[in-house]
Amino acid sequence: MEILTTIEQLRNIRKNITASVGLVPTMGALHDGHISLIKKAREENDIVIVSIFVNPTQFLPGEDLDKYPKKDEADKKICEICKVDYIFMPEISTMYEEDEVLIKAPSKSYVLEGKTRPGHFDGVLQVVLKLFNLTKPTNAYFGKKDAQQLTLIQQMVKNLFLDINIVPCEIVREKDGLALSSRNIYLNEKQRKDALLISKSLYQAASLVGKKERKSKVLKAKMYEIMKDLDVEYIAIVNRDFIQSEEIELKNTIILVVARFGNTRLLDNIWI
Amino acid sequence: MEILTTIEQLRNIRKNITASVGLVPTMGALHDGHISLIKKAREENDIVIVSIFVNPTQFLPGEDLDKYPKKDEADKKICEICKVDYIFMPEISTMYEEDEVLIKAPSKSYVLEGKTRPGHFDGVLQVVLKLFNLTKPTNAYFGKKDAQQLTLIQQMVKNLFLDINIVPCEIVREKDGLALSSRNIYLNEKQRKDALLISKSLYQAASLVGKKERKSKVLKAKMYEIMKDLDVEYIAIVNRDFIQSEEIELKNTIILVVARFGNTRLLDNIWI
Repeated sequence: MEILTTIEQLRNIRKNITASVGLVPTMGALHDGHISLIKKAREENDIVIVSIFVNPTQFLPGEDLDKYPKKDEADKKICEICKVDYIFMPEISTMYEEDEVLIKAPSKSYVLEGKTRPGHFDGVLQVVLKLFNLTKPTNAYFGKKDAQQLTLIQQMVKNLFLDINIVPCEIVREKDGLALSSRNIYLNEKQRKDALLISKSLYQAASLVGKKERKSKVLKAKMYEIMKDLDVEYIAIVNRDFIQSEEIELKNTIILVVARFGNTRLLDNIWI
Repeated sequence: MEILTTIEQLRNIRKNITASVGLVPTMGALHDGHISLIKKAREENDIVIVSIFVNPTQFLPGEDLDKYPKKDEADKKICEICKVDYIFMPEISTMYEEDEVLIKAPSKSYVLEGKTRPGHFDGVLQVVLKLFNLTKPTNAYFGKKDAQQLTLIQQMVKNLFLDINIVPCEIVREKDGLALSSRNIYLNEKQRKDALLISKSLYQAASLVGKKERKSKVLKAKMYEIMKDLDVEYIAIVNRDFIQSEEIELKNTIILVVARFGNTRLLDNIWI
């Protein structure tokens, strides 16, 4: 495994690769969710590149950029065990200069996460496009946990005619159902226990949909009831284009929850 | 020569090309300026692709999109004579869908053309990025006449880490000095004659710089004097980053003029 930190190193490596390349873009602090992405990339490609870069442009002022967990040594170890070929780990000044050409997410992204975190997806798309152009992957791996991010990246690939296959990957959970997140480490014991109600409410809603319940209102009421003791930021039931409606489709529906535990926001969702 | 109109056709062709590819993006109505770009591309690449697409997103409401000259048959003939390998000539609906991921030019672009035509460069960068991603050129050819456009495209290539060599090409002029433009056909006889004062003022200013004149004010005064009978929109003297200053650099300076002749805006410039 080789660790690359400069554009030049990455370009020199990349130009000599003619085989398939799998890219797993991450912000580090790798957990089993990331590992599942890396393993899938390892199975499906000749060369696997993992990028580790805490991207400043997707954090809003006042968000947790400075205290975002950094675990470089553990991350390298994990990548080595997963037989990653290259880690790309640039400095911020390597990736950005002042007053850049920017990417703007489509207006339909200004709901849910895009509403709570205006500009967040612009930053996500910007860094992902840079990483795509640098690594020129055959396949790129993204978790379904960041559902809106995933659909926007798929749209960017379509709109900009990028020749890249986006591979959506299943959410990985703790045994008790909590979706893995680098931010879970911020939870205290009580919060950790309470957080279980998120996945519980999602399972319950999915089960109701399985029984042909199509009314958003009924599903949401059930979920709010289960999460009544939580600080729920939103529950949303959307189709694959992230459009909400009163009567949901029994297929192609995504149910999303965001709840706050002190300063920690947890996202979870289920794809039906 | 083959004419491609769909994404699928272009992709099928492109994926089997391993040799060097030169791209000349145009809006059609090809004149000797374009031909000089195509010839340069022909000399420097194994495969030459010319795109002909009047890009709606770079026109502002009320601009001349609908009456922009269209000369498809003549354009095809010219490309054939210039030994172009492929013309890419898509419909608008092939290139765009509703509510897309957008490109935003950097804030420093909001001067000169970017000020007069807010959003223009966003549209230019958007279509150029799409064309780059589709054709994956080794080299892409742009005229110095659209100086600000050229520098913004160079910046996009740098910021987004595109692996493309941008080749700036000299302005082609009529024998009497008028810079070639698809919009010149709108000029009546008097306007055509008056328009000569633009290049005359540029030559005069360049000659003064050759004599070590560094004061923007002096250069501009001379130019305004020469163009006193014209409707001059702006004269600008900038460095390669499009920053204006009172004392100019004797190298790396661009002098730009825009003048209006009825509804027709003519641009010209000289690189020192």
